[in-house]
This record gives sequence, structure tokens and C-alpha cells, in this order.
Amino acid sequence: MAQKLTKRSEDYSSWYNELVGKADLAEHSDVRGCMVIKPYGFAIWEKMKEILDAKFKETGHSNAYFPIFIPKSYLSKEAAHVDGFAKECAVVTHYRLKTNETGDGVVVDPDAKLEEELIVRPTSETIIWNSFGKWIQSYRDLPIKINQWANVVRWELRTRLFLRTAEFLWQEGHTAHATKAEAIAEAEQMLDVYADFAENYMAMPVIKGLKTESERFAGADETYCIEAMMQDGKALQAGTSHFLGQNFAKAFDVKFSDKEGKQEHVWATSWGVSTRLMGALIMTHSDDEGLVLPPALAPIQVAIIPIYKGEEQLAEITEKLTPVIESLRKQGVSVKFDDDDNRRPGWKFAEYETKGVPVRLAIGQRDLANGKAEVARRDTKEKNLVDFEGVDQYIVNLLNEIQENLLNRSKTFRDENIREVNSYDEFKEVIENKGGFVSAHWDGTMETEEQIKNETKATIRCIPFTEKEEGVCMVTGKPSKGRVLFAKAY
Amino acid sequence: MAQKLTKRSEDYSSWYNELVGKADLAEHSDVRGCMVIKPYGFAIWEKMKEILDAKFKETGHSNAYFPIFIPKSYLSKEAAHVDGFAKECAVVTHYRLKTNETGDGVVVDPDAKLEEELIVRPTSETIIWNSFGKWIQSYRDLPIKINQWANVVRWELRTRLFLRTAEFLWQEGHTAHATKAEAIAEAEQMLDVYADFAENYMAMPVIKGLKTESERFAGADETYCIEAMMQDGKALQAGTSHFLGQNFAKAFDVKFSDKEGKQEHVWATSWGVSTRLMGALIMTHSDDEGLVLPPALAPIQVAIIPIYKGEEQLAEITEKLTPVIESLRKQGVSVKFDDDDNRRPGWKFAEYETKGVPVRLAIGQRDLANGKAEVARRDTKEKNLVDFEGVDQYIVNLLNEIQENLLNRSKTFRDENIREVNSYDEFKEVIENKGGFVSAHWDGTMETEEQIKNETKATIRCIPFTEKEEGVCMVTGKPSKGRVLFAKAY
Ligand SMILES: [Zn+2]
Ligand SMILES: [Zn+2]
Repeated sequence: MAQKLTKRSEDYSSWYNELVGKADLAEHSDVRGCMVIKPYGFAIWEKMKEILDAKFKETGHSNAYFPIFIPKSYLSKEAAHVDGFAKECAVVTHYRLKTNETGDGVVVDPDAKLEEELIVRPTSETIIWNSFGKWIQSYRDLPIKINQWANVVRWELRTRLFLRTAEFLWQEGHTAHATKAEAIAEAEQMLDVYADFAENYMAMPVIKGLKTESERFAGADETYCIEAMMQDGKALQAGTSHFLGQNFAKAFDVKFSDKEGKQEHVWATSWGVSTRLMGALIMTHSDDEGLVLPPALAPIQVAIIPIYKGEEQLAEITEKLTPVIESLRKQGVSVKFDDDDNRRPGWKFAEYETKGVPVRLAIGQRDLANGKAEVARRDTKEKNLVDFEGVDQYIVNLLNEIQENLLNRSKTFRDENIREVNSYDEFKEVIENKGGFVSAHWDGTMETEEQIKNETKATIRCIPFTEKEEGVCMVTGKPSKGRVLFAKAY
Repeated sequence: MAQKLTKRSEDYSSWYNELVGKADLAEHSDVRGCMVIKPYGFAIWEKMKEILDAKFKETGHSNAYFPIFIPKSYLSKEAAHVDGFAKECAVVTHYRLKTNETGDGVVVDPDAKLEEELIVRPTSETIIWNSFGKWIQSYRDLPIKINQWANVVRWELRTRLFLRTAEFLWQEGHTAHATKAEAIAEAEQMLDVYADFAENYMAMPVIKGLKTESERFAGADETYCIEAMMQDGKALQAGTSHFLGQNFAKAFDVKFSDKEGKQEHVWATSWGVSTRLMGALIMTHSDDEGLVLPPALAPIQVAIIPIYKGEEQLAEITEKLTPVIESLRKQGVSVKFDDDDNRRPGWKFAEYETKGVPVRLAIGQRDLANGKAEVARRDTKEKNLVDFEGVDQYIVNLLNEIQENLLNRSKTFRDENIREVNSYDEFKEVIENKGGFVSAHWDGTMETEEQIKNETKATIRCIPFTEKEEGVCMVTGKPSKGRVLFAKAY
């Protein structure tokens, strides 16, 4: 707790790495690219899971579980998919170790070589569509709407905690439908679920749109995405939902007989969010003092710290606080009453600040006499002496206010950092010096997209649903169907 | 749904396999030894998880997540552990594939060979104690009480759905303590949590005890277990809790400074239950018609089936049923109202019977006129015409009664099939012809245990906590400190 974090303005990247460590969220393991998610970080992820899981069930999805291993040959069944996913992945080649010759270690047993190598799943479309093939015969078997919470592995050389790790946790939804329209509606519905979660729980505004062809999921006909802006102006793709067309149905030969008995290929979607959301959450709200959490996702919403000398004073304060704690808990507020004798109040204040606890209540002997308590909010760092009478309701209201304030604050920041430009020179200037999102016209070709990326490092984050104004491409002068959003991205 | 299950009395093993398929619980995947847990099966597992997770948190544990990969060298750090776990496991040797020469598939890229092979975790003691080493310096850092919900892989050649699969889902608790006494108390507490869960939710009675040295977890000083009896008299180890002594602390050199500043090795426990519990649940209660579920773990507790001709009748019945459904849901009962027009009532009756739904309510035009409804319970297959007035409360009571009845029934069966024997001849006779658990004296040596196993296939399932009667070993005549329980086991 002793050392301060690097300031965001000095080095945003160091600030992030230090914060993840100091707030006890995660750490690197000795296994290259794999992280350890520590209890406090995991508690936040659990809250995310719980809320999302309920939303998936409300929209008619069931959880299931498919094997972690995918036979190597499956990956090449869908042509686009293999290019996107079959390359950087963990390959299991053997199924046994044996004691080495010196007897003090183990070596791979060369006799235990697999006939066909297994890939640790980078995503599960192939293994799931192999199952769907067995489950689907008739229109009566459709739709199938499944979700899986799982770990996946994509080998990465340069990793950052939560943002890019070789192993990460995620959910992947996989659905099968009788019609194209139903599958598209499903993909769009799940994008809305993600956007709603981002805004109303993470307090993180997002822009909904389509990916360009070059940024599309490998095997998708269309990729929908939500894009968020981090405090350094860079974009973070927070969730994607894919309309897969009949690509996987064709690759795994999955057909159904419709009401007239005609055989048709099935239509598909898949959609996912991952522990990357933890990185997005951190980089949307936190400050130079540490983590800032929206109350809706805070494992501890209120930390209550008695300030006392001796057991008698503690007993007196505790007695006074008990009904407040009970009232808060009854209202669903998660409270930590920290009367740990081994730590001083100042240490605790710093601890809860670093960990982003939204509200802190401190009360000492003099406050008690005056019928007051000190309430501090983490988002603005305001402190107020408030009447002890009714402090429970004050805190409940304050938690709502903090949730709202965080969304408004990040929305204001985001909106201030979306800039329309009309020439490529202006574009380069803004991307280089101001950052943020740039709204500009583009001719719709991969060539121009590639050129812009090579020259500026900015990519097209999405083609927003709302954008319909026609124009001309800032680079080529060719016609454009509407502005798209460019940014440097995580 | 058409074909009947093989009868248990004819072939218990076929009955089990067919039931798992027909009740839509799980199926084999194309990946050797890996199963697909289907939505209905997964919904039961989710209920188990939810209940257990709450109990772990109540007893002060936090969830966290550690890497799926373990460096090969870690496995050999704890000598006993490597013998138990390092052998049959999935070994990752490469991190990249590349397109093959003909361009229509992928091959392992020989240039992407890992310097040190990675093992897909068979259990996580080694990787977790490597982290604990960084987290623990002083007595203030203790205890650490962590749980992880994860997938693990132990290569198996002969697999059975839920009971023995290469990949399975489980939870693994890992704790670190300042004293031996505290670690032992933790291991015992978690065994009690498991036993409570087995009896009060799974309705499955268990015997608590210690494993013999030869059946102990690799790396443990003591393994506590709960043993359940399946309907065929075989034993199933339903959960284990290990007192690990200082073995892993020594292997990973994890010390803490106590209040006097003295350096001590840390004391440890680990404990786990897995998707194997699904197999135990099935084999404890189910019958020749299909799955039988205790209400506490049933995803659907009540299936309500309207019997009608035409929309007008359906509307009338639905109107009458709506307040009943609402009342049940308000009381936390999960209800499925099945008015699907594509299936006939008889088909639905069979479906819910196969899937083990505890209570079925059917109501038709004549019942409506008479103010009655037909309520069927799955456990005894009793059907009753009951007054429609108050049927909601009748069902709530019936669910409690079914939960109780299932526990009593399995307890009676279990108790009737535990037999005390006093000679080895009698032992062999009982094991061969009657099965069940046999309570007998044993001299405490691994040699005798091994001999009995080789000659009868029965193993010592546990040394029950309750057994204190001294005697003489049935095989060698040497002194015995108390009877132990033998059985053939899953
Ligand atoms: Zn086809
Ligand atoms: Zn040591």
C-alpha cells in the first residue's frame, strides 16, 4: 500500500499494470501469458457473470458444457475459421509422462503420442456444431439456444493482465435457428444485452455497430460489436455478437427438415464477452489513487470503519452501527465492517480507496457525541459529515448517485472525444495529437482501410448503426455510405 | 422416448448409460474421454454449484482462478504428488499450427515447440502453492481460504459419463494455515459441508471417514472422505478433503513469520467434489422408468400439463391454473407449464417421468368441472385426485415429503446392505453374492489390504469415524483397532 501509483498522465500503461497489482485484482503466473485472478478481482468477475447469466436465461438460453479439446481436423472444416483461429494455439500431442532416467523428474512418454493432435479450444464453434449435428433433425429441434462459461486459450506473446492473455475466461453463446431472420434477430438481441450490461452495470457507454469485413470474426457473415472508449482515448471492443449465416451448418453438414419436409441448412449465431471486461471496467473509471468501481459491480459497496481507542469505545460504536449495517444489508447493500485491530484507520482508508469501494463510512468518539458520521464517496472523493440518524438511507441514495455519476462522467468524456473530420490530413492530426474516436468517411474497401491502418495505426472500430449520412472517402474521394469510427485500440 | 430402458436388475451398467442419454443429461463427444454436458444435465450441476458455492462462502472461502497449464517441472516438486498425478495427463508441447503443404488442412508447426512442456491441470496444488509462496510472508497473511471452480483433465482409457471422464468439472478448495490444528479443523469442516450437502440436498446418505494410506491423495498426510452406496451395492466416493500437512509448503518453500518473528512452514488443506456427483445422484434414486431427482436439485420441480381439445378449453384451463402457478413460483417452486401443442399428453408424461421431475399435475375438462386435479409423484409413482382448491400448498408439502422420502429410502437401502462379518470366508461370500458394504476387522497393513483387493476386488472404502471396537484381522488374525468398510467401488 505504501507506494503511490504512477500517474495516468505520466504513463497510462504503467498506471494500469500497477493498479491491477495494488488493487489485488490479478497477477502474472509463471506460465507464460496465463494470469492468476485473485479473490478480489474474481469477486468482481463473479458479479459480472451473475448478472449476465440471468440476462441470458431471461432471453431463453440454457447453459451447457462442451469439451476443452478440439480435434485438429475440426478447425479446418470451416475455411475462414481455420485462418482466423487455427494458428496460435496450445497443441496437445501426448497423453502421458514417465519418470526420467535419473528418477528425479518426469519426461514426456514418446510411446503416448496421440494419433490426432488436440487443440485447447480458442473458441468452440467447431466442437459445438459437431454436437448440434447430432441434436438437430427437424424444425421441432429448433431453435437451440446455448451458452457456455469456459476458459479458452489463444497463444499470445505480448500479454497484459485481463486485456490480452493466453488463457482467459469468457462466455460463448451458440444458437441454431430455422431462418436467417431469426438468427439475425438473435445476434442483434444479444448485442443489446451486452450494451445494456455495459451501460447500466459497468457504467460504461458503448457504441453499437458492425465490424468491417477485415475485422469480422473468422467464419461470420456479420460481426456486431460494442466499442467503449478508455480514458486514454483508445478504443476497447467490449463484446461481439456474430451472425454466422449457414457457414458452420455447411461445414458440419447440419440440416433440418422444415414443416414441409424439405431439408435446409441451419442458421447460426455466436456471441461472447470475456475477462477483458475487467480491463475495460478498470480503464473507464479508475483514477490516480486506484480502482473506482460502479456500485452495481462492487464486491464491497460500503466499508465501515470505526475509529476508537480501547475495547469499550469499540463496543459503543459497534452497538450504534449495528442497526445501520443491518438496515443496509436488508436493502441488499454489501457492507464490510472493518474493526480489525491490526491495522490503523489511515491504512484502511488507503486500502479501500485503492480497491475502489464506492462508499466509506467512518465514525469516532466525537462523531458519536455529535450524532454525525463521515461519509466519503470514492468517485468524486467528496467527504461529508452527515446526520447519523438516517445515514442508511443516505448511503443507499448515494450508491445510486455514484452509479449514475460514473455513467454520466464517462459518457461526457467519451462524447467530448469523438471528432468528425473531413480530410485525411485532419484525420492524421487528430489521431496523432488528440486520440479518441474519429468519425470519418471511408470508401468501404479493405485497401483503404489497410492503408489508413498502416499509416496511422488507427483501425475502423465499427460502422455505427446510427450513421446514415452519405459522403466521400477522406482518403480516395470515392463515395461513402456513411461515416465510420476510427481509433487506436486495445 | 420410444424404447424402454434396460431394467436395473438385468444390467445395471447398461441401464445407467441409457438413462444418461434418455434423460438428456450428457453424451460422449468425439474427443476420447471428454463428455458433452447437455442443458438439462448442466442445469442440475448448476444447482449443485450454487448450493455448494454459498456454503463455501458462508465458511469464509473466496473464489479465485489459477492457470489451466502447469509447467512440467512443478509436478515433480512434491515427491508423492508426482507419482499420483504426473502420469496420465494431457501434455501441451507446441503453441502453433500452420497450413499443410496441400493447403487444405493444418499441421503442428515444428518451430513452435515449447521449451518446457505444459500439463493440463489434473489438480492445482502445485500451481496454487507456487502463488501462495508469493502471497504469504507473515501470520497476518493467514489463513488463506480459496476455492476454484474449474475443468481438469486426467487421461482415462475406459470412461463412463460423469463417473470417469478425461475432462471433468469440479471445485477445488485450497487453504493455508498457521497451525496444524487449524488445518485439520478446516479439512474436517469441509468434509462436514460435503456430507451435509449429500444428505440434505442430494438425499444421499454418506459415511464419513478416513482413507487408508494406499487410497490417500498423492501428497496428503490424511484424506477424509464421504462414501455413498449405489443401488447395485457398489461404493462411490462422493467427496474428499485432504490434510496436506506441510508437504506442499516444503515443496514450494512457503514459510511465514509468526508473531515472535520465527519462520515456519505453512499448513495446508485441499478438498473437492466433481461432476461425478451427477453419477452418484443418478445411481442413488433413479428407477427403471428413468431419472428420479430430489426436489432440492430438480431444475423443474413441478410439470403442469393441461389436457384439452381446442383453444377454448386450453384458455379455460390456463385461466384456472394461472394463480396456482403464480403461488408456487412465489414460494420458490420451479414450475414448467407445458401447453406445447406439438406433443400429446402421454408423450409429455413419459418425458417428465424420464427426466425425473418430482411432481406432475395434470388437469382436464372433467377435473375442472369436479374441482379436482391429478397429482403424480415421481418417487413412488403414486397418483392422486386432489382438490383443486389448495393444490398449491398440497404440492409444496409434497415436494418436502418427496425430499424426505428419498433420503429415508436410500438410507434404509444403505443400512440394510452394510454387513458385519468376522471371517474371511464369510467376507468373500458376502462380497461375491450380496455386495454392499462389509464391515470387518483388518490388521492395518498395506499388504493385507492388497491381498484382499486382489482376491476379492473389494477395497477399503474408509475407516469410519464412529468405529472404535477392537478386534482381530479377518485375514491374518493380527490385532485390529476397529472395523473398516470394504466394498467394490466405482
Ligand atoms: Zn451440407
Ligand atoms: Zn522450506
